Amino acid sequence: MTFTSWMESIRQRTEVALDQYLPPASHNPTRLHEAMRYACLNGGKRFRPLLVHAAGVISGANPATLDMCACAIEMIHVYSLVHDDMPCMDDDTLRRGMPTCHVQYDEATALLVGDALQTQAFITLADVPLTAKTIAELVRTLARASGAAGMAGGQAIDLAAVGQPLNAAELEQMHIMKTGALIRAAIRMGALAGESLDTEKLERLDRYGKILGLLFQVVDDILDCTGTTEELGKTAGKDAAADKPTYVSLMGLAGARAFVDDLLTQAQHLIADSGAPGQRLKDIALEIVQRTH
Amino acid sequence: MTFTSWMESIRQRTEVALDQYLPPASHNPTRLHEAMRYACLNGGKRFRPLLVHAAGVISGANPATLDMCACAIEMIHVYSLVHDDMPCMDDDTLRRGMPTCHVQYDEATALLVGDALQTQAFITLADVPLTAKTIAELVRTLARASGAAGMAGGQAIDLAAVGQPLNAAELEQMHIMKTGALIRAAIRMGALAGESLDTEKLERLDRYGKILGLLFQVVDDILDCTGTTEELGKTAGKDAAADKPTYVSLMGLAGARAFVDDLLTQAQHLIADSGAPGQRLKDIALEIVQRTH
Repeated sequence: MTFTSWMESIRQRTEVALDQYLPPASHNPTRLHEAMRYACLNGGKRFRPLLVHAAGVISGANPATLDMCACAIEMIHVYSLVHDDMPCMDDDTLRRGMPTCHVQYDEATALLVGDALQTQAFITLADVPLTAKTIAELVRTLARASGAAGMAGGQAIDLAAVGQPLNAAELEQMHIMKTGALIRAAIRMGALAGESLDTEKLERLDRYGKILGLLFQVVDDILDCTGTTEELGKTAGKDAAADKPTYVSLMGLAGARAFVDDLLTQAQHLIADSGAPGQRLKDIALEIVQRTH
Repeated sequence: MTFTSWMESIRQRTEVALDQYLPPASHNPTRLHEAMRYACLNGGKRFRPLLVHAAGVISGANPATLDMCACAIEMIHVYSLVHDDMPCMDDDTLRRGMPTCHVQYDEATALLVGDALQTQAFITLADVPLTAKTIAELVRTLARASGAAGMAGGQAIDLAAVGQPLNAAELEQMHIMKTGALIRAAIRMGALAGESLDTEKLERLDRYGKILGLLFQVVDDILDCTGTTEELGKTAGKDAAADKPTYVSLMGLAGARAFVDDLLTQAQHLIADSGAPGQRLKDIALEIVQRTH
């Protein structure tokens, strides 16, 4: 299967799995359930599910089990988008070319959608058909990556940094927490779901995940600077307009592009010896970088 | 130990445990961590922790393990209060006699505080020193009680019901989800933490928890109607003013009080044969009811 076909197949099965693991719109409270589905089932890039499945090829995990892990992490990602878009945060009205959740519904519903999606992630993980030991480790991995020491904490640092430029080290720490922690967790969850990898292999994949998270953020900053609203499906130039620090504002466009190449080399080196099963992860890194060229 | 001394001792140890299981205020992001601690460490009633420990006496659980379960469920409860108080929900400025989180800090921070507290609950549960099987069951119990089929779902029904009075069955369903699910989960978590109860005993405690949740809500509605803002430590008459349905608006004050007595009888009957270890749970039910007399 080509990489493009593989990505498409993972996106399709993730859409089906999300439909399955979200509460049905026909059940009470219907408006909340509808809004949760509106926020999730919009044909997103499904970057984190792709990572779960790509790491799952290496760990030899069951694809249906990976779907549940992928849904859990995608629900966390979507909850963060719904809350980030709210008026008291980024006040964004467009997300993937569609009205954001609080625009389509209302603010109170968007608040509850985010809250309930976070919970739904843990409900989904708790029912994964793996040993209780792996379930507990999956919960630990996802929770640590999402909370005050991960995504939510990174968001808090980002908020505090508006108008007070961060230096390179602080910017990197913020992104490692805000975006990187969940990307890293996606790879770790796919690796754990196979229940077969030794500690050393798990550790290398974890380092790969950390670098990939950073790579993703630098590329995102470059695109926010060079892309149009139409291309991105969200408001372009938003971070620069809000005086938020980005890798581009810090390093310049050429510097940021050079940093991307450096991170890519580091990442590919880490999984150079994993052979054919590692190909999907390698392809994902290349795919991310290609968006900037 | 008298019941009053016992309650005080549980409240004190819960305060100590929350301080331990919340991220330290000295660590980055300091403002988020401070605000999480502001929301949690305010000497609340700790009703859910009391239930965890009371059920834990019956299951013979280790008190330090119960502290972790108690912290997890209290973090979920506090996150829901922080989000409920926000302008787009109840728009409340007072909570336990103190400025609410978004008033003391700001809306964006309050949003993140709620998000991160929910995650912190699962981080805490994932590290409980019990078998992985029990950890997975604790996560499942807390997540189901908190999400779209529990607390968050009840909140959504409550929102939708403003200005559209619910009938008795709908009102009961809303409260069973919004408040009752977490109260029931508290008792179930205390019961699970002992890792010793048979299914039948667990089931009876679960039914007790369901009735107690309802009892708590009816009493809360009575107090909202008869108490003063000063006594309650929060704005009195808020629900009636917002045209929200309550047991008092539905049954009248005398009817609601009679319902309380009926629920109390049912609850006490369910644990009549549990002997001395059941005394704390019985006392809690009596304590709740006494607030209305």
